Amino acid sequence: MDNQRLAQQLAFALQIDDEKNVLRQTLLSNHGRRENDAEHAWHMTVMAYLLREYSNEPIDIARTMIMTLTHDLVEIFAGDTYAYDAEGQKTAATREAAAADQLFGMLPADQAEEFRAIWEEFEQNQTPEARFAHAMDNVQPIMLNDSNDGESWRIHDVARSGPAGRNALTRQGSTTLADYVDELLDKHVAAGNLRP
Amino acid sequence: MDNQRLAQQLAFALQIDDEKNVLRQTLLSNHGRRENDAEHAWHMTVMAYLLREYSNEPIDIARTMIMTLTHDLVEIFAGDTYAYDAEGQKTAATREAAAADQLFGMLPADQAEEFRAIWEEFEQNQTPEARFAHAMDNVQPIMLNDSNDGESWRIHDVARSGPAGRNALTRQGSTTLADYVDELLDKHVAAGNLRP
Repeated sequence: MDNQRLAQQLAFALQIDDEKNVLRQTLLSNHGRRENDAEHAWHMTVMAYLLREYSNEPIDIARTMIMTLTHDLVEIFAGDTYAYDAEGQKTAATREAAAADQLFGMLPADQAEEFRAIWEEFEQNQTPEARFAHAMDNVQPIMLNDSNDGESWRIHDVARSGPAGRNALTRQGSTTLADYVDELLDKHVAAGNLRP
Repeated sequence: MDNQRLAQQLAFALQIDDEKNVLRQTLLSNHGRRENDAEHAWHMTVMAYLLREYSNEPIDIARTMIMTLTHDLVEIFAGDTYAYDAEGQKTAATREAAAADQLFGMLPADQAEEFRAIWEEFEQNQTPEARFAHAMDNVQPIMLNDSNDGESWRIHDVARSGPAGRNALTRQGSTTLADYVDELLDKHVAAGNLRP
């Protein structure tokens, strides 16, 4: 191929195939296997579009969608860090910044900058799009976990304060969806799936 | 939950989790396992955004993205039909229309209509967004198959005319990407991975 720009873009497109091999702690519905990052990103992006009316603020849906689709790409090199793994979370930021250099550096300069900026916008969580993207990042696994009677919370002996803490972030993006999550968490504490 | 609209939307969001269990014939890169529809949709949507400069016509990228994300949802009920399965292709349209009624019928009426229209726009392939979405639908598995030395073509004893026929569709969406595919197909015929 004599088109160097396209060759770089396609090398990146092939590299991100690896996101399908990054496993999360969430289980698919019907007590299924563990979900991977690509599936999670797909699911939360469809949900972002489906539920956009519940964003607290008006959002640019295209910007939100490319953000939710790509927010976990750095985990191809940095690995997934479970939300309630305190030790892992301490080093996650450093590992992920190095991964971003490596991954986005594969792209032509203008797109390296563009994709990096989208990822940083998600991480910094200071725009309406990033806040709604975080709401989706939290609501999607809680919905699956609820459908599985809290199985992954029980496996990891999670206390209500874990998902409730993340739900404070969800509330910044969507009050309606945070209310729905709070209701679910109460239900799972009552059922013994989450420690109080 | 006393919000009937949200309850319907979340029931749909949970139902589409099943797309992660619809397997395709494409293998992940590095001679990996079979890909599922959700992973495929995620991958081709990131590629739609990444490669949008190669669309023959200007496109609304948000419309294109929600189309690529949801174009295979009907396969949750209708199953995946391999591109080169002539018998299966004969009944695919009828099976998929019934599946669309069932799936999109779960949504509130306005969104049932919206998601159905997006799916039909893809199927009818008469808009710039649909044409570019079809290009992505074709280029993404060809890229993976190329990375695996044509493994899935060899397994299914595919002739060049199969992917070349689909590449005529790709050309309607993107001349640049269709040229890239033609180059790859020639290479795989020469290597004996595709019958001439």
